[in-house]
Amino acid sequence: MVEIKTIAWEDGRVVMIDQRKLPQREVYVSCRHYRQVIAAIKKMVIRGAPAIGIAAAMGLALGAQKLREKGRKAFDRQWATMCREMAEARPTAVNLFWAIERLQGLANRESSATADELANLLLKEAQAVHEEDVAANRRMGLWGQALLSDGDAVLTHCNAGALATGGYGTALGIIRAAHEAGKKISVFADETRPFLQGARLTAWELQKCGIPVTLISDNAAGYLLTSGRINAVIVGADRIAANGDVANKIGTYSLAVLARENGIPFYVAAPESTIDRSLSAGYKIPIEERSPDEVTHCGGCRIAPEGVSALNPAFDITPSAYVTAIITEKGIFRGPYEESLKQKTNRY
Amino acid sequence: MVEIKTIAWEDGRVVMIDQRKLPQREVYVSCRHYRQVIAAIKKMVIRGAPAIGIAAAMGLALGAQKLREKGRKAFDRQWATMCREMAEARPTAVNLFWAIERLQGLANRESSATADELANLLLKEAQAVHEEDVAANRRMGLWGQALLSDGDAVLTHCNAGALATGGYGTALGIIRAAHEAGKKISVFADETRPFLQGARLTAWELQKCGIPVTLISDNAAGYLLTSGRINAVIVGADRIAANGDVANKIGTYSLAVLARENGIPFYVAAPESTIDRSLSAGYKIPIEERSPDEVTHCGGCRIAPEGVSALNPAFDITPSAYVTAIITEKGIFRGPYEESLKQKTNRY
Repeated sequence: MVEIKTIAWEDGRVVMIDQRKLPQREVYVSCRHYRQVIAAIKKMVIRGAPAIGIAAAMGLALGAQKLREKGRKAFDRQWATMCREMAEARPTAVNLFWAIERLQGLANRESSATADELANLLLKEAQAVHEEDVAANRRMGLWGQALLSDGDAVLTHCNAGALATGGYGTALGIIRAAHEAGKKISVFADETRPFLQGARLTAWELQKCGIPVTLISDNAAGYLLTSGRINAVIVGADRIAANGDVANKIGTYSLAVLARENGIPFYVAAPESTIDRSLSAGYKIPIEERSPDEVTHCGGCRIAPEGVSALNPAFDITPSAYVTAIITEKGIFRGPYEESLKQKTNRY
Repeated sequence: MVEIKTIAWEDGRVVMIDQRKLPQREVYVSCRHYRQVIAAIKKMVIRGAPAIGIAAAMGLALGAQKLREKGRKAFDRQWATMCREMAEARPTAVNLFWAIERLQGLANRESSATADELANLLLKEAQAVHEEDVAANRRMGLWGQALLSDGDAVLTHCNAGALATGGYGTALGIIRAAHEAGKKISVFADETRPFLQGARLTAWELQKCGIPVTLISDNAAGYLLTSGRINAVIVGADRIAANGDVANKIGTYSLAVLARENGIPFYVAAPESTIDRSLSAGYKIPIEERSPDEVTHCGGCRIAPEGVSALNPAFDITPSAYVTAIITEKGIFRGPYEESLKQKTNRY
């Protein structure tokens, strides 16, 4: 397998490939301070719900390293501040909050540990978050690849690949797993305006893996779905509510409606950490609005007249009724999701 | 009204605003030879079905001016060549063929005219094509504006405005007419990748007219249609089959499906010259595929990795079942369109 190094802990720093610069340049950002990690998440140096979760965990672990010399009380005060700041990095992907809570839970449980001991434990935990994500992607890939047949063409949106995760991918992990199982799979990738994750990241990743990929404008997805050339749509998720409603990159809802209209299965691939059982339905998921500049500009060039308003919601909600199945590391879940997501998780 | 000079006959030349350069620069292309007009249509210096029809008529009239000194037989030979070349400029917008046939019909009828006389007649006819288009847009505007209420928000796709026509607009003509009738109308414009007619042209036109416009990425249209903020979707057309199926800019089909899914009316505005009664259904309309470079690049910048494939259909077909009404200069047509388009035309 081609290795794509989305994020790593190296010599006491958090190192990430700068996803804003791909595919033109493969450069790395090295963070020495947790606030640099927060800035990297905000500016989308790193993006993709699982990758954001890993970055949050590593960012907090990084912050903890600087507090080794402190007394535990001082540690706890600064730790609380760091967690609060980290939680404000981005609002939609639940993996961010999941990762923060996981590390917070550890810190609370280890109430008798010294700051130095806790810094070690938190670093190990952040690394476990990373390793477990890759393992979850692999298992998800094995479950999901069974849904694909030799010769299938898959339409995907945004980037739910190695770059969006610890290093294998959710939606693209399934495609990778099918490819590794010897099935011939071809991919059509929406370019995914405004941030162009499809054109810049998905196309780059799949090219590296030797999986045939054809880029289309987001507008061409409907045309393609009517053409009979697409066998499945597979996307990732930023947050899944208890009823199976899916928050994912803006444009996902449109694809889901178009897939159903054309009788094509619409699959969502995401780790357990993306399921937010505290929210009963999708409308409760906060949708981030990003700068209008992302819409008025493209690839660094201004495309719209000066002074024009733009609206830039970064995510949308796909009601679970449009979702054929949700694939996690625990298996393949089908509707009604209130029941299936609950049961299978308990059974596992 | 703000005047936007899409195309004009000036001192024996065909002058067009270069739509590739908008909104950054307002520059004009001046054609002295009919082949320059053909090149301008191919390269999308001018685009939009009605505007392409006018350009074709003016291009042929321009060619005819150079043949004034010829004998009629020589004129006819070269005329046939010009018409054949013009017909290959672009395949989807039927207005191109409609305009060519209109001028060809005139030349055939005037079989006893000299080349000099015919050159005069063809120029007058091309100018009539232009004037009639603006008049048709105005009438369409009056019919269509009755469908909009004070305070409505309209979603539109691509550019079906002054720049796509003789100078008033089809979809945007309806919005203009409602605005001129004193209704407060706000517009959401899809940016319309890959050529960005929405971001570059529609936003620019509406800004000039003082009509509030908000730009969105094409991906955000579905989200917006679920939000309750949109009262109607209005688009233009490149060709309408006898059964009401509509060929229009890629992405139109997706919008139509999403509008219906959300109970929002989906209107198509186009002059009579866009209706192709020789084709029984939309699947018979040829869909132009343009260069993959339009998808791998944006605003002049490469956005995708080198060597990646791209598919670039320029239009899609919206089955008439999704079309709430078709608005032409002759009135408002509703399904079943096989009947309505036939009857009303006959009655007019």
